[in-house]
Amino acid sequence: MTIETVSRNRSHGGVQGVYKHASRETKTAMTFSVYVPPHQDGARLPVVWYLSGLTCTQANVTEKGEFRRICAELGLIFVAPDTSPRGEGVPGDPAGSYDFGLGAGFYVDATQAPFAGNYRMWSYVTEELPELIVRHFPADPDRRSILGHSMGGHGAMTIALSYPRRYRAASAFSPIAAPSLVPWGIKALGGYLGEDKAAWRKHDTVALIEDGARFSDFLVDVGDADSFLKEQLRPQLLVAACTKAGIPLTLRLQSGYDHSYYFVSTFMEDHLRWHAARLKA
Amino acid sequence: MTIETVSRNRSHGGVQGVYKHASRETKTAMTFSVYVPPHQDGARLPVVWYLSGLTCTQANVTEKGEFRRICAELGLIFVAPDTSPRGEGVPGDPAGSYDFGLGAGFYVDATQAPFAGNYRMWSYVTEELPELIVRHFPADPDRRSILGHSMGGHGAMTIALSYPRRYRAASAFSPIAAPSLVPWGIKALGGYLGEDKAAWRKHDTVALIEDGARFSDFLVDVGDADSFLKEQLRPQLLVAACTKAGIPLTLRLQSGYDHSYYFVSTFMEDHLRWHAARLKA
Repeated sequence: MTIETVSRNRSHGGVQGVYKHASRETKTAMTFSVYVPPHQDGARLPVVWYLSGLTCTQANVTEKGEFRRICAELGLIFVAPDTSPRGEGVPGDPAGSYDFGLGAGFYVDATQAPFAGNYRMWSYVTEELPELIVRHFPADPDRRSILGHSMGGHGAMTIALSYPRRYRAASAFSPIAAPSLVPWGIKALGGYLGEDKAAWRKHDTVALIEDGARFSDFLVDVGDADSFLKEQLRPQLLVAACTKAGIPLTLRLQSGYDHSYYFVSTFMEDHLRWHAARLKA
Repeated sequence: MTIETVSRNRSHGGVQGVYKHASRETKTAMTFSVYVPPHQDGARLPVVWYLSGLTCTQANVTEKGEFRRICAELGLIFVAPDTSPRGEGVPGDPAGSYDFGLGAGFYVDATQAPFAGNYRMWSYVTEELPELIVRHFPADPDRRSILGHSMGGHGAMTIALSYPRRYRAASAFSPIAAPSLVPWGIKALGGYLGEDKAAWRKHDTVALIEDGARFSDFLVDVGDADSFLKEQLRPQLLVAACTKAGIPLTLRLQSGYDHSYYFVSTFMEDHLRWHAARLKA
């Protein structure tokens, strides 16, 4: 479990690093970024996990997310994994589209050929990478939270619902709320998990809630000028599921905002304060 | 003087835009970014000009600069031009190096062939683009300030010293303080302005001050882990010149910081507050 340093830069009093390691899950080199805020020697800090959306690597949020100032103030480690395995021999979408394969792992463990060998992003972000982070950074293994954007919002909410005691807070920007019902999700879940729709329900926030999964509460921001809102994100399905299940949901439809990091960075501070309040409770 | 919208995204309550226009100075299409903070109808807002460094376009600071939150709070328009003309027929460095030609206009009006026809970044950022901004955005023509990074710090300080009444504040991250004396500057000033060293002095902060130019005060941040510190930036020459001339200089050597936007974004807030205090005085 060694890691290689790609870059380390001082920022907002802490260190923004980018690292690489050989993943046992994906059987590829995986790149991830970690921001460690200023802290006292020997301290163990809570860790916020950020899952990115389609086409992204760890770099998008690391460069554009505007999270470091707040993480420095609140004493949060911020981890951003890549969104899929990459590299020679890793199968992608034969058609080369942006919404399946490379950059589009959808945070599942694929069961279908030819993806099952490498596309193990669920186990990677919930098991392998957390172990690595605790080993190499001043991370408190007992204080963890998760958020994400779009496909990563889907990942964050499904993971939180699956491990409600492991994650003390969860939130999302523009999440894909019900992937089983929308084009992005149908393509990805079908491609990675096959035609058995029962397997899909474990990777669908709305279906998980319908099937009894629970989480303490969620914060979700969505822009009302998001071009994916109606076809792919469908936040009203999340509202209905949370209401029926009695899960407190703070859903904010943000006027004039779109799907970009100009939107994410605007509300990142609110999300990190939401996480910090729960991580430090 | 028409402009074409490349993109507009709501962010931190305002609008981050990227625009293109046909420049009379560079005789090329030029791209620039403008952040307009939330404001009342009919308001005319102060404008902060940000000049970028070698290899950058307007995109680097727009994506990584972390300026929008503060500009929204302080009511500042933030303009980021490109660093050189670009496009078919624009001569670059025959050797293709990063520090001359494309991405390296050095904020001078070139007098030497083959650059004199297009490389007119001084007139572009001090005359043409300001006129365009006042025409197309809610900008107050009488309240303007300037800052920049590296080559752009050089540009910001030389422009402020040349037009001390036009700019109400000036600051820099890691500026090239005395380009006439360092490799980056010698190459660029020689290439654009020729061998007449008298012409160079108008584009050298330390020389301008030695020759009698004055400005109200400067804020300068430099990282002590900046790999260009000793050979290219040489802030001690700036300290000596300002001290001798009686120009108040707040120079902060920031421990552990390098030349990157991880550094710039950390101290952007301090710079914008410095500018706002002077723009609103």
